[in-house]
Amino acid sequence: MKLTSVFLSLLACAALQAQTAAPVKNVILFIGDGMSIPQRMVADEFSKRTRNQGLLINSLERQCYTTTRSANSFITDSAASGTAIACGEKTNNGRIGMDADGKKNLVSAAEFARDAGRKVGIVTSVTINHATPAAFYGHNTSRGNYYQLGLDLVASNFNYFGGGGIAKFDKKDDAKYQGSIYELAEKAGYVISKTAQTFDTIKPGMDKVLSFGNPDNALPYEIDVEGPHLRLADFTRQAIQQLENPNGFFLMVEGGKIDWMCHANDAATAIREVLAMDDAVRVAYEFYQKHPEDTLLIGTGDHETGGLTLGFAGTGYQSFIENLAAQTCSRDAMDRKFKPLKGKTFEDAMPIITEVSGLIFGQAKEHKVGDLLLTEVEEETLRKAFAKLQDTPDSKNPGRALTSAVLTLIDNKSAVAWTSGAHTALPVATTSIGARSIEFTNLFDNTDISRRIKQVLK
Amino acid sequence: MKLTSVFLSLLACAALQAQTAAPVKNVILFIGDGMSIPQRMVADEFSKRTRNQGLLINSLERQCYTTTRSANSFITDSAASGTAIACGEKTNNGRIGMDADGKKNLVSAAEFARDAGRKVGIVTSVTINHATPAAFYGHNTSRGNYYQLGLDLVASNFNYFGGGGIAKFDKKDDAKYQGSIYELAEKAGYVISKTAQTFDTIKPGMDKVLSFGNPDNALPYEIDVEGPHLRLADFTRQAIQQLENPNGFFLMVEGGKIDWMCHANDAATAIREVLAMDDAVRVAYEFYQKHPEDTLLIGTGDHETGGLTLGFAGTGYQSFIENLAAQTCSRDAMDRKFKPLKGKTFEDAMPIITEVSGLIFGQAKEHKVGDLLLTEVEEETLRKAFAKLQDTPDSKNPGRALTSAVLTLIDNKSAVAWTSGAHTALPVATTSIGARSIEFTNLFDNTDISRRIKQVLK
Repeated sequence: MKLTSVFLSLLACAALQAQTAAPVKNVILFIGDGMSIPQRMVADEFSKRTRNQGLLINSLERQCYTTTRSANSFITDSAASGTAIACGEKTNNGRIGMDADGKKNLVSAAEFARDAGRKVGIVTSVTINHATPAAFYGHNTSRGNYYQLGLDLVASNFNYFGGGGIAKFDKKDDAKYQGSIYELAEKAGYVISKTAQTFDTIKPGMDKVLSFGNPDNALPYEIDVEGPHLRLADFTRQAIQQLENPNGFFLMVEGGKIDWMCHANDAATAIREVLAMDDAVRVAYEFYQKHPEDTLLIGTGDHETGGLTLGFAGTGYQSFIENLAAQTCSRDAMDRKFKPLKGKTFEDAMPIITEVSGLIFGQAKEHKVGDLLLTEVEEETLRKAFAKLQDTPDSKNPGRALTSAVLTLIDNKSAVAWTSGAHTALPVATTSIGARSIEFTNLFDNTDISRRIKQVLK
Repeated sequence: MKLTSVFLSLLACAALQAQTAAPVKNVILFIGDGMSIPQRMVADEFSKRTRNQGLLINSLERQCYTTTRSANSFITDSAASGTAIACGEKTNNGRIGMDADGKKNLVSAAEFARDAGRKVGIVTSVTINHATPAAFYGHNTSRGNYYQLGLDLVASNFNYFGGGGIAKFDKKDDAKYQGSIYELAEKAGYVISKTAQTFDTIKPGMDKVLSFGNPDNALPYEIDVEGPHLRLADFTRQAIQQLENPNGFFLMVEGGKIDWMCHANDAATAIREVLAMDDAVRVAYEFYQKHPEDTLLIGTGDHETGGLTLGFAGTGYQSFIENLAAQTCSRDAMDRKFKPLKGKTFEDAMPIITEVSGLIFGQAKEHKVGDLLLTEVEEETLRKAFAKLQDTPDSKNPGRALTSAVLTLIDNKSAVAWTSGAHTALPVATTSIGARSIEFTNLFDNTDISRRIKQVLK
């Protein structure tokens, strides 16, 4: 075969492939808020060590890393990165579905899908008018305008909203108050379930649904809930049931509370949130397996939060991520458990500290790497934090000082560490599988994701 | 066109593409030691802000992220990751070109290339028998056996070794001493240049060459050298000149000192090392541009070092990476400059601190984010470190305490931070361009790199 003819044949092949690149029927996009590569890696390793199974989202066959900077900052917020992923354009931190100047509305992949005849669903573990989900239906100069974003939700005509409920807002801040979002949604034809009790009243065939675990709040932290409860995976399953139809659908599912506990530098709780999202990915993957030629599954994050690192000065080349299994509640629950220790002795606090964190009191003379046994020096750190708790007024969350000291110890003894309570500029991982997923390799920037989704939906 | 015929045509296309996947003639692999995604990002951003140009290695058209764990540790060392990248097999930390049991020699991509008739070159900014370069020609249970690795170098029959010289070793530790590595290399037919003075005596047509900037040491830190000097880019250019031939070549170039200054948590120096490596990438890229159909260019790292994060608690969502331009020397040079301050006053130290770091004394009452002006509290930190310098014996590197305090301040004021003096488990970025680079997307693990290189060389 001569080189020229090979070249011409390859050209013909490329043309043929473009021709045969049929629109993708179903697109399911997962976004871990604050879930960059360290968050995915630490949860993957924790899962391998404690339940012998890595993250599904990490093993999807296509992958790349995507940068996250916003129009006005090297370090993005969730509004700008949500807008970038949803709409494919950079905007300033704080803006939702609008350009950097705050003048032009942008078109999200969800709106694009709706206009192309697909059903559309939005699921999140935080409130449904929070920045990331709002970026798929909302248009506002400020992420804080929850009421106006609620109005955009009602006007979106999307078919399914699920997970956390509608964030409370301050009516006085908004001149254009037209009634509660729930009232307006009902008027617009939405069937509404506000709690777990009515979850099963949502039936296939209902065209427009709001289905929440909580009327005005996020879903609880996974680590804080015992026994059966409504999880992100349940809303994902319900969403797919509602959305599946001959014309296809677009579904965005956000694991939103990963970010919150990375802001809190609470590794164990953040890991459980990543695992909860991965369970939701498994639900979508089952659907993909039934419809592999019609379905595209994508998993990304919107930015890194906390400056999480998979190593720590005190532990060198060793890693003890499994230690985090000993922690039994979230930072917020810890605050609540420590608050009543005001007026009590440190000896009263010790069993509670052990219960929530797995840290063991024993005044070890020498530090043994990876051991949860506290040294004298570490116990002294906790005693100081306990003294601070005594001095903090109830209005100022007295438990927090002790909580922070406990979390730093448990995290560092597990060989993970943090450098910030805010976001950082680390790129995120974007993985995918299914129809035209090959077009989701070599994406360098988060804006590429929306552009490609629109491309494959056409 | 019916679906069946489309499918058959696509099958034919795939067969044709496999058929036309000719072996790649020239493969150039860059490895940044300790250069994970944060190191690439911080250098890219620094370069954009200070010279209006991002990193070439970050803009190569194909990319993925690759995990780095070793056979026996979530956190790899450079020997195990070098072996993984070179040979495509996991091994224990410390081993070079051998399996985890330390019993079986592995075959590196460089040896594979040599045996497939390609010329082979190895370039590094550290010593040539250090872990990463050694993984491409050496086979030893321990990276510390520099002499035996030197013997492997001589026996490799590779055509070009360049950059840092042969690391000193302790003869007493090695029973099988047969003479100096230089003597043995000369006997084996190598033409040798040990310093910059004789660099130009190396001429095309010489079949086997050792060309070093220093007989027994690494190249200097870029930040510490003023004026023209032999750089990684120069050795890369010389390597390509020596290696270019009708049968093609394999060249590995390591930016080895990125790692060293990440261990030191010295961001400015590490960044300059990344930029120096990127200048070497530009030399290879020029060659690629002349021979785009015959050349594959790959850029990766072996692991993350230091737990570097692109954000810091004190700077929130802002970033001041350009501040690092004010630092004028490496951690090691700082140590040397601070040492003579023993017996002097803090007032003597102040101008020297400003000279090396850009930190400005002025007892600012309030901290202004991103400002290099020191607050009272920050000055107090430096005064304490200065006091420690006075108390440290000369044998214990008295300058180090003050150096560390200065580096922490300049890094954090630039909104970068570190969590470790060791490596971490963060994956690295692997980018590529050129012949069959499409096969270098979706590589999940560092072992995939060697396997694919061997595949495309066949």
